[in-house]
Amino acid sequence: MKVNGSPTRTIWPAADGRSVEIIDQTKLPFEFETVSLETVTEAAHAIYDMLVRGAPLIGATAAYGMALAMKADPSDANIQRAYKTLFEARPTAVNLRWAIDDLKQTLSPLNPEDRFDAAWARAAEICDEDVAMCSAIGDHGKELIQVAYEKAGRSRPVNVLTHCNAGWLATVDWGTAIAPIYKAFDAGIPIHVWVDETRPRNQGASLTAWELHQHGVPHTVIADNAGGHLMQHGKVDLCIVGTDRTTRTGDVCNKIGTYLKALAAHDNKVPFYVALPGPTIDWTMTDGYKIPIEERDGNEVTNMRGLTAGGEVVDVRIVSVGSKAVNPAFDVTPAHLVTKLITERGVCEASEEGLRSLYPEHKEAWK
Amino acid sequence: MKVNGSPTRTIWPAADGRSVEIIDQTKLPFEFETVSLETVTEAAHAIYDMLVRGAPLIGATAAYGMALAMKADPSDANIQRAYKTLFEARPTAVNLRWAIDDLKQTLSPLNPEDRFDAAWARAAEICDEDVAMCSAIGDHGKELIQVAYEKAGRSRPVNVLTHCNAGWLATVDWGTAIAPIYKAFDAGIPIHVWVDETRPRNQGASLTAWELHQHGVPHTVIADNAGGHLMQHGKVDLCIVGTDRTTRTGDVCNKIGTYLKALAAHDNKVPFYVALPGPTIDWTMTDGYKIPIEERDGNEVTNMRGLTAGGEVVDVRIVSVGSKAVNPAFDVTPAHLVTKLITERGVCEASEEGLRSLYPEHKEAWK
Repeated sequence: MKVNGSPTRTIWPAADGRSVEIIDQTKLPFEFETVSLETVTEAAHAIYDMLVRGAPLIGATAAYGMALAMKADPSDANIQRAYKTLFEARPTAVNLRWAIDDLKQTLSPLNPEDRFDAAWARAAEICDEDVAMCSAIGDHGKELIQVAYEKAGRSRPVNVLTHCNAGWLATVDWGTAIAPIYKAFDAGIPIHVWVDETRPRNQGASLTAWELHQHGVPHTVIADNAGGHLMQHGKVDLCIVGTDRTTRTGDVCNKIGTYLKALAAHDNKVPFYVALPGPTIDWTMTDGYKIPIEERDGNEVTNMRGLTAGGEVVDVRIVSVGSKAVNPAFDVTPAHLVTKLITERGVCEASEEGLRSLYPEHKEAWK
Repeated sequence: MKVNGSPTRTIWPAADGRSVEIIDQTKLPFEFETVSLETVTEAAHAIYDMLVRGAPLIGATAAYGMALAMKADPSDANIQRAYKTLFEARPTAVNLRWAIDDLKQTLSPLNPEDRFDAAWARAAEICDEDVAMCSAIGDHGKELIQVAYEKAGRSRPVNVLTHCNAGWLATVDWGTAIAPIYKAFDAGIPIHVWVDETRPRNQGASLTAWELHQHGVPHTVIADNAGGHLMQHGKVDLCIVGTDRTTRTGDVCNKIGTYLKALAAHDNKVPFYVALPGPTIDWTMTDGYKIPIEERDGNEVTNMRGLTAGGEVVDVRIVSVGSKAVNPAFDVTPAHLVTKLITERGVCEASEEGLRSLYPEHKEAWK
């Protein structure tokens, strides 16, 4: 999507065809800075230090990391070394593992002298596949925004509430939950986005707000506490959120606080949509409450990063000094609170039947 | 309650009997500082600049403000001047108006030379009345905590979730929602409090956490987003919150985000209690959604105050610079989501019938 008026992806090959550029997302929203990755070590650091984040973008960066390794040394031994270096940068990231497995399989049968070009081409393909998937989610979700616009008699902008950052910054382009918003905006549907700040890491207030502002989409940041009140007063037409993992029965694991918004949407008859790429569906799980929830450091609650009046980015303690904090990172929204799932293949009920209709090939899940 | 081990109120007469001491709450939680008020102007500034906050404490400060005015000049004209000075410090504060009306009525019939002593005594009485009311709320609420403790087979601490600061810092002592917690703790019931940080003004993370820490009550700060997840996993036995205004039908207006916690409590069969002194019941209202909701400055969302590693308290911008924020300060929880109301007269259903049983004298409301 756009940054300073120019179409931009989160990762792209440099003009020299031998290095790759990324946005340093740790500097956002206060600075927009791009970084050039020349080696597999730099790619691994970009993943480890979270210059790139979001499952699809981590996968894409890892794929390019394998290509950068082949540039330096296309030997079998170096395929192994690069694999290990990248894997260890974020061992729990499913997309990372998937991408480096793919590259390893692609490269191993080839002659060493062909490996760099093949890796480079495959990494670009992985990026384009992600963009196509997110774009398709956007097209399907746009229809739901169009419906809300018609329902309001085309009389005013559609108000969409979102939580966390499931925007293009978490993918290669378009995003998941935000893709329908960009598609609707680009198609000229008047739209306004309520952006939950999303404590404790503030991905909404920093990343979602930043990317909507850069693309020119009207939006307003709100405290996470405010969404229910806005729904009670008819100020939200629909919610769209992303997901880290969805069970085959439609239970949705997403950023902490999603469940509270789903409850409020249900109580106020506001449609609550979840946008997801097929690969995030966990076909082995039927009970969302069994998804293990990551407990992150309490410091993310007690401390916060911000910009001083003098333009300096500092970390400040915001909690009374004698008190500790706990920090569960995700929660689970049960399927019955989810109006529909928006996937790259279309829109379906958040249920086993719904997902079966779009993904019939997962036969082992439908026994 | 206790500060550094010593029983403390939020306002108290100085040893000289001619000035009054308060805690400068704008310095909390990072510094504990008391301020001496010598004149009515100083009392008005303390209210206006929010060194004191919370309806009962504002009322108590205003009462002492009238007394300080009488010390300087006990004339009729000065009763009027002091009234005006204090009223204008916070024109919408119902308790302030009530306190200065009370003092004016008390003082006007007296000889000027008797006015200071009378005002001083009446201000002390207003403080003691507030303490007695909060203490009674605490005693009634403690029973509900005891019930939860028995229900858990006395096997582990009772987990109470609270939102915002309805603690002793908002009153003269004890608080409203936190009074039952102090009573239970002081009675030896094992207890642990989940403290919602309460964005955007963070009264939970700063004030509630500070006062629980000072009194020695075990507690943990959480992001506002986390409460629903904790309830889903059985980690909350009951919720207790305060209220700024409750309709005679039991709809509860309280700090923004209260409604979301009430929804989650209802969804997980967690009792949701609201503690309130009788004077905050609005006998004229039957529909909570008609309560006008204050929209505060968006800067409270976009900026945050905190302590740097160097020990300096600074204000930082936390939202992407191109984005604006809106900031509704309260929301309304409908009566059907409230398990019980805890008042100074006992516990009742959140309904017209429930309130009628405790406050039969409000006949005009029961037509």
